[in-house]
Amino acid sequence: MTLAAARTLRVAVSPAYDVDVSPGLLDDAGRFISEKNVALIADSTVRHLYGHELTDVLVGAGKTVKVVTFTPGEGSKNLPTYGRVIGDLASAGLGRDAAVVALGGGVTGDLAGFVAATYLRGIAYYQLPTSLLAMVDSSVGGKTGVDLPEGKNLVGAFWQPRAVLADVKTLESLPARELRQGAAEVFKTGLIGDPALADFAASQIVPAATGRGPLPSEDVLVDAVARSVAVKAAIVAADERELGVRAHLNLGHTLGHAMEAASRFALPHGDAVLYGIVFAALLGRRRGYADLVQSLAQVVKGLSPDPLPAFELDDLLPYLARDKKVVGGRPRFVLLADMGEPVVVDDVTEAEMRGAWSELEEMMR
Amino acid sequence: MTLAAARTLRVAVSPAYDVDVSPGLLDDAGRFISEKNVALIADSTVRHLYGHELTDVLVGAGKTVKVVTFTPGEGSKNLPTYGRVIGDLASAGLGRDAAVVALGGGVTGDLAGFVAATYLRGIAYYQLPTSLLAMVDSSVGGKTGVDLPEGKNLVGAFWQPRAVLADVKTLESLPARELRQGAAEVFKTGLIGDPALADFAASQIVPAATGRGPLPSEDVLVDAVARSVAVKAAIVAADERELGVRAHLNLGHTLGHAMEAASRFALPHGDAVLYGIVFAALLGRRRGYADLVQSLAQVVKGLSPDPLPAFELDDLLPYLARDKKVVGGRPRFVLLADMGEPVVVDDVTEAEMRGAWSELEEMMR
Repeated sequence: MTLAAARTLRVAVSPAYDVDVSPGLLDDAGRFISEKNVALIADSTVRHLYGHELTDVLVGAGKTVKVVTFTPGEGSKNLPTYGRVIGDLASAGLGRDAAVVALGGGVTGDLAGFVAATYLRGIAYYQLPTSLLAMVDSSVGGKTGVDLPEGKNLVGAFWQPRAVLADVKTLESLPARELRQGAAEVFKTGLIGDPALADFAASQIVPAATGRGPLPSEDVLVDAVARSVAVKAAIVAADERELGVRAHLNLGHTLGHAMEAASRFALPHGDAVLYGIVFAALLGRRRGYADLVQSLAQVVKGLSPDPLPAFELDDLLPYLARDKKVVGGRPRFVLLADMGEPVVVDDVTEAEMRGAWSELEEMMR
Repeated sequence: MTLAAARTLRVAVSPAYDVDVSPGLLDDAGRFISEKNVALIADSTVRHLYGHELTDVLVGAGKTVKVVTFTPGEGSKNLPTYGRVIGDLASAGLGRDAAVVALGGGVTGDLAGFVAATYLRGIAYYQLPTSLLAMVDSSVGGKTGVDLPEGKNLVGAFWQPRAVLADVKTLESLPARELRQGAAEVFKTGLIGDPALADFAASQIVPAATGRGPLPSEDVLVDAVARSVAVKAAIVAADERELGVRAHLNLGHTLGHAMEAASRFALPHGDAVLYGIVFAALLGRRRGYADLVQSLAQVVKGLSPDPLPAFELDDLLPYLARDKKVVGGRPRFVLLADMGEPVVVDDVTEAEMRGAWSELEEMMR
């Protein structure tokens, strides 16, 4: 057995919890979960990959495990699936002393977290993310929820996990396209809070994320996850309910969410955020902020996201108008005054959006 | 215009809010609601009685009002109705700066409160209870949620209103059966925290609640609501998340919830709790606590609840086993050591339950 890199990050929300980042953590999961009765929620793919083994680990640690599965994909992150999963917990007779264990990517974490937040008005839950995106994004912040036909994440709750176990060994099974979504998030996190991390993501993870290189070493993965979590944890701890600086994390998300919804989620989250980041750079240049358009566009192109969908801006405006970040009818954007210097703007006009969208199309098509 | 009784009770949860109790408050609702965009949620009966007028009041106060209605009754307190209502908010494009206004009884407050708790991960809401039960029970405590086929209130969240406006004039339209449900709750609240209030409820509200007398005066109604809210607010403020003394409020609820669920909600909440209170007195007598059986049973009979359903205890045990209050597989009961002295017990055996159930059947059938 090699002594691999391991990092523990404290997320100082209320109540505080730890994010443990290390290869092989799943084999040791029983040690972190104090509840005896556990609902293990996973999609059918992840159940097949890791669920049976994790069940054995938990049963071996003396726990009673109820396994609940659902069809993989963002299409399952909806109220009907939520209703079925929460009904399964009720049928199993789980009480307030039970815990939800979410094993999988962001969809699983969001869905299972919302189940935990609302079953019996809230029970304990643990996140065991198996994708890079879930490790660096949805595992910190306490956001849980599901989509509505009208848009992404329109239903949900803030609910903090008891602990997050990020076993980077699970990234070995991650398709390159999924790795890219996580790389996009590490890149974005670097842009708003740790410019060196943005460079690190571009140089160390992009090759693997585009299938042009092997998976980075476990040390590199642990480092990328831990540094991203550190940036995000500091922001979230300063603003647990998303009333202020936490909005910075939404860099690229205003346009990104609208594109995801308008594409009926055919365009994956990270790719949509990448386009959203360039869009934000274009808006920022129009306002006289530092011109980051070319340098950011180069990294985005290097990540080879799925092609920019053939939308008109008019296709996106209805989604932009109903974004959660809307204030007084105008969508809220996060722009970059410079690398590592996010600013929130509430007064972007339709004309500015049309201009930036034309430029984005020209650059990315 | 008469200068009627008016009381304001502070509920010191986080964030704190006021319960205003007064006749005619609905005419003045615009003054209490600071948000410009409002979703007014009511069942179709209450919409007809008060919703149109309230809409006029709110529009007159400069607000934009989206009215969302649903079919009256506990049968609407479920995930499908929740999904439809929250979808209506999304279709209307309401943002985080909007507020939910819940106009109606307990079902409306619980359902609309859960919508407010989870729409965009939580927006402001106001409770405008129009039943005595909603005024004294569900308007304090921050409990929101819906039922599952497996049992009552199995899904939900803690979410505090910005304000509660209890307009006792709305009680004039309340059927006697519904008034009885509220009288039962006032009685229960007195039993655990204000024995004089229990006497007051029995003498002042029971006659009207059983159709044997006129509706009490507005002064009496304001007094009953305000004193109940005061007891409940003190308990809830001491234990916002229901980890300790707040359990006392569940006097009569362990058996009550099981009977409601087993009857498919044909037995109304207050009536079920009344039987639950006598059941608790029977369990308490078996344990050597003060013998309150006859005195409580007399008040309960005086309230003429719907007949005790023809259950065997075996019909109720599955519901008792999956109650939210289950700890280590055993249902948790609140008993009375004496008037105003609730105690929580976790170790009631099946034999004790069987004995008490037989006695209850004998007394109440």
